[in-house]
Amino acid sequence: MEKRIERLQRIAAARPGVISLGGGLPADELFPRGALARAFVRAMREPQATALQYAWPEGREQLRSWIAARLRARGVEVSADEVIVTSGAQQALAIASQLCFRRGDAVGVDGETYPAALDLFRTRGGVPRRGWHGDVRCFYAMPAIGNPRSRAMDDSDRRSLLSRDLHILEDDAYAELRFDGTVTRPLVAERRARVWHIGSFSKTLCPGLRVGWLVPPPAWRDRATAVKHASDLQASSLGQTILELFLERDDFDARLARARRFYRARAERLVRAVRRHLPSWRCDEPEGGFALFLETDEPGDDQTLLETATRHGVSFDPGRMFRPDNASSPLALRLCFSYVRARDLDEGARRLARAWDEYRRERDREATAHADGSAAP
Amino acid sequence: MEKRIERLQRIAAARPGVISLGGGLPADELFPRGALARAFVRAMREPQATALQYAWPEGREQLRSWIAARLRARGVEVSADEVIVTSGAQQALAIASQLCFRRGDAVGVDGETYPAALDLFRTRGGVPRRGWHGDVRCFYAMPAIGNPRSRAMDDSDRRSLLSRDLHILEDDAYAELRFDGTVTRPLVAERRARVWHIGSFSKTLCPGLRVGWLVPPPAWRDRATAVKHASDLQASSLGQTILELFLERDDFDARLARARRFYRARAERLVRAVRRHLPSWRCDEPEGGFALFLETDEPGDDQTLLETATRHGVSFDPGRMFRPDNASSPLALRLCFSYVRARDLDEGARRLARAWDEYRRERDREATAHADGSAAP
Repeated sequence: MEKRIERLQRIAAARPGVISLGGGLPADELFPRGALARAFVRAMREPQATALQYAWPEGREQLRSWIAARLRARGVEVSADEVIVTSGAQQALAIASQLCFRRGDAVGVDGETYPAALDLFRTRGGVPRRGWHGDVRCFYAMPAIGNPRSRAMDDSDRRSLLSRDLHILEDDAYAELRFDGTVTRPLVAERRARVWHIGSFSKTLCPGLRVGWLVPPPAWRDRATAVKHASDLQASSLGQTILELFLERDDFDARLARARRFYRARAERLVRAVRRHLPSWRCDEPEGGFALFLETDEPGDDQTLLETATRHGVSFDPGRMFRPDNASSPLALRLCFSYVRARDLDEGARRLARAWDEYRRERDREATAHADGSAAP
Repeated sequence: MEKRIERLQRIAAARPGVISLGGGLPADELFPRGALARAFVRAMREPQATALQYAWPEGREQLRSWIAARLRARGVEVSADEVIVTSGAQQALAIASQLCFRRGDAVGVDGETYPAALDLFRTRGGVPRRGWHGDVRCFYAMPAIGNPRSRAMDDSDRRSLLSRDLHILEDDAYAELRFDGTVTRPLVAERRARVWHIGSFSKTLCPGLRVGWLVPPPAWRDRATAVKHASDLQASSLGQTILELFLERDDFDARLARARRFYRARAERLVRAVRRHLPSWRCDEPEGGFALFLETDEPGDDQTLLETATRHGVSFDPGRMFRPDNASSPLALRLCFSYVRARDLDEGARRLARAWDEYRRERDREATAHADGSAAP
């Protein structure tokens, strides 16, 4: 991430009273603290306390079985042995990246996509590029619910992507948080040999455990496990054990249904607030996930807009973070409805509208001054 | 790791009655289960449950301060801002590796060294090579207590290494587990600009939390943080928060003193058992750590010896795992005293002696048959 954006985001996070519509955090009201604490205490009473010990790199078996069973219910031919538990979805993506492309290779992405994926591809010497045509080595997709647009990939794009002979990194992090409750058939169900399927408990349960998973193509399973082991030996035994014990007693589908209702209500509230206060910005209705993507047709500097917004007591994620070429124009931004209190969604949009007014006045003033200056002898 | 060794180790781990002297696990008797459970319950009562939420990539501040303070007490000029909390020491090493060498580069190591470091260098296209001379790009060192030899680097080697103009990856995992209680001055205290200092709670407290740290050279701090973020966003919030709360109330130095006494007694017991049952194997007295390294001058196949040993009810880590060239000869092996019950150390050495006898008889029989065969017309 660019240093200036990071600095502004840290300022916003540290300053009390700033409404943070950036970041993409899940709602902490939904974290099942009590049930997790009970699972932890049970784990500490096990004779060997395996939750505190080293474990195999692929992860704990009961957890892998749970993950595989849920994927099979969605049409994926997969056994527990083919699942690798990772330190969050990001690590699953890092493992796939290490095996799917080399320095200098083009990595295909959507026109706007998940910033930490772009950062990852860049730190590994990959060159993010929009689309899946030409000489891209692999394509990073969020087909069920994208980020930042929070919409499903459309069917013709899906067919076109699947028809290409390349590796697909399928990030399924938000798939179970579609507001209509449908859980789509993942790409890995269509092309097991070329899709690296990536999932996570971070959005559906909580991120602090750092538990996600990777289902590599069968021919790559051993290499992926070796890279996992080299990366950090294994995912947290503690996080995995707590999850196993928690899932034994939890009704996960009921939990998902509650989370979908919760996020849907927040999304609708933020969409209404944006339409009221920022009518000149375009915004698609989200189909799930945590965020809205707001767009204009105007050129501009989203970092300066963020600076102005922070002074007005609100922060967001600048559009350039999501773009493979880092472009600030046309001006766009992501607003997350997932984390802040419901009433702050309205107030956040109101503050952003005031910041936007100030930003435009300042921009127009500078443009006028510049035009006057150019005209002067 | 080679598939055959891994398969044998998994068989040994799964078979009840096999005494596992491989693996290098810490003793679970030392895990402070009750205190960790109390820390977890406290974390779940925090208003925001930050233990379950996302956090900054560099890690929690109180934990970084604790780590920096302990390093300063050992002569290192370092502030909390220069510490990156990692998902175990292995990830710290992976981050340093990503920045210190490229595919095809030679990576210097000791004649025998930590197998997961060798695996890491290899998965990244590095070429492990003994020593720090010639065109090595960086050197991986365990100067305080090595693995598998469990001895400190000697002073002349230390001076020679520090005089070379290369990056040093200093793995300090066992530094606080020297049996004599002295904690040596780390290399990073001598050459802050070229040493990547790596530490862990896995040996001193427990591995299941997956919390370690990296202190990169100051000029590399931002790049290392970016690689950390790209690798898995952040170390487990849960593991970090539990540690912070635990360390607030723990007497960590008293804990280390107990651990040193515990492991020293186990080490002495295994050394006695080895000298009694395997008198033809050389073995240095360990100065700390978890393991003995046993050596012969004979050529041989350590995988076959492991197979024989597993049949006799004992397992170990074959010497080739620790060698940059993967050589099986001269025959060597690592025995860990850290994990198994004290009485099993004697019985394990006894079983290994029986396996060694059988291995030699079989080898001599084959050699005779081969010689007879060669002599035949």
